[in-house]
Amino acid sequence: MKNVKLTIAYDGTAFSGWQRQENARTVQQVIEEALRAITGEETTITGAGRTDAGVHARGQVANFHTAKELPAATFQAALNATLPPDIAILDAEEVGETFHARHHARRKRYEYVLWNAPVRPVFERHFAWHVPGPLDVASMAAAARRLIGEHDFRAFAREVPPEKDCVRALYELSIVETRPRVVFTFQGSGFLHTMVRSLVGTLLLVGHGKATPDDVAAILRSRDRTVAGPTAPPHGLTLAEVAY
Amino acid sequence: MKNVKLTIAYDGTAFSGWQRQENARTVQQVIEEALRAITGEETTITGAGRTDAGVHARGQVANFHTAKELPAATFQAALNATLPPDIAILDAEEVGETFHARHHARRKRYEYVLWNAPVRPVFERHFAWHVPGPLDVASMAAAARRLIGEHDFRAFAREVPPEKDCVRALYELSIVETRPRVVFTFQGSGFLHTMVRSLVGTLLLVGHGKATPDDVAAILRSRDRTVAGPTAPPHGLTLAEVAY
Repeated sequence: MKNVKLTIAYDGTAFSGWQRQENARTVQQVIEEALRAITGEETTITGAGRTDAGVHARGQVANFHTAKELPAATFQAALNATLPPDIAILDAEEVGETFHARHHARRKRYEYVLWNAPVRPVFERHFAWHVPGPLDVASMAAAARRLIGEHDFRAFAREVPPEKDCVRALYELSIVETRPRVVFTFQGSGFLHTMVRSLVGTLLLVGHGKATPDDVAAILRSRDRTVAGPTAPPHGLTLAEVAY
Repeated sequence: MKNVKLTIAYDGTAFSGWQRQENARTVQQVIEEALRAITGEETTITGAGRTDAGVHARGQVANFHTAKELPAATFQAALNATLPPDIAILDAEEVGETFHARHHARRKRYEYVLWNAPVRPVFERHFAWHVPGPLDVASMAAAARRLIGEHDFRAFAREVPPEKDCVRALYELSIVETRPRVVFTFQGSGFLHTMVRSLVGTLLLVGHGKATPDDVAAILRSRDRTVAGPTAPPHGLTLAEVAY
């Protein structure tokens, strides 16, 4: 059996997220159906992260096993010829039998884009969250620095069972302004469900003067989801890279 | 009567172009209906250029007359609240009674984007023409320089009656690579129907080694549409600016 690693881009707008589910168009399902059309095999692909409905990727990673003796580049070309226009396979390579896209991921990078201008964006409307009005980016950046490091991020996770280990290492949380874009970059060992979007929603409270960097540090320490800010909408979020 | 000048952005993907027509969703029609909902008046808007189906704008200009005594900024806000998400009014200002968006336009700038990479784009798929394979950009730029200036551009126009004056001044035709994007910028006094897309299609013959810069100069001199290259597809084209 070959084990093939794919690097995948998708526009999440018309997908109900990554993970296969009944009666919904998901990225996993669409790729598995394309593979079945190419190989004739029933294939399950394993993604590095299960992006939510509306979330995009330009560096999702997945792997699948196949008995077909095709070069990885042939899989890439055949998939790109078969997949719909809102998914593309950016790279394909053969990897060792034991490689697992989720278990072996060491670091992930997400980007969240705000569109901070009075007029809503037209071309970016599916890829940036429109936030009109003044934004105190310096205070948001100060609050962001309080979140970097290894912490229990339970306060920023949704539907996490009490016994789950919520300690994650956040290596980077930077905010770069390329006006009217305000881009948050998150790099970490792993992310809990809705963690990035909850962090953005909480930092936005700071940007609007409704919370201080000290408040954000206190929310982190509380480990209480109910005190964190609202969850930012999915369409501003992109899974940019998974490192192994 | 007030005369109001609008600067407009639209994603042309779901529009049958600018100009109102029967049984089609056009930019003109959608804006006129929004104005009628706001003012109660039957209003005709005049656009600087009639973009084709699928062509985008981030600096289209139009004007309309109204008896309503509303400030221009109120028209802008009301239109943005009424218009669908694929159109936005970037600016509105009151202008003199005689201002005419088409007749008074002195210069227009268009951009055409190629996506020159083996894998088709996902996020740019509605805004860039995917052209895989090597491209001789230096030769394209040399051919482009032969087109700059005041010329009869009849060879690059579609459905032009023989008596129509096809002399236009092309001030700029530059090609900038921000890989995998290759961006053509056209500035001129005015453009004939499909002229920008015919020029891109003809320059691409040069990029693919199927024509030389001398051939392009000969096509220009021929004033014969049948010898020019194919018309590039509309989705790579954006009306970027209209100057008065």
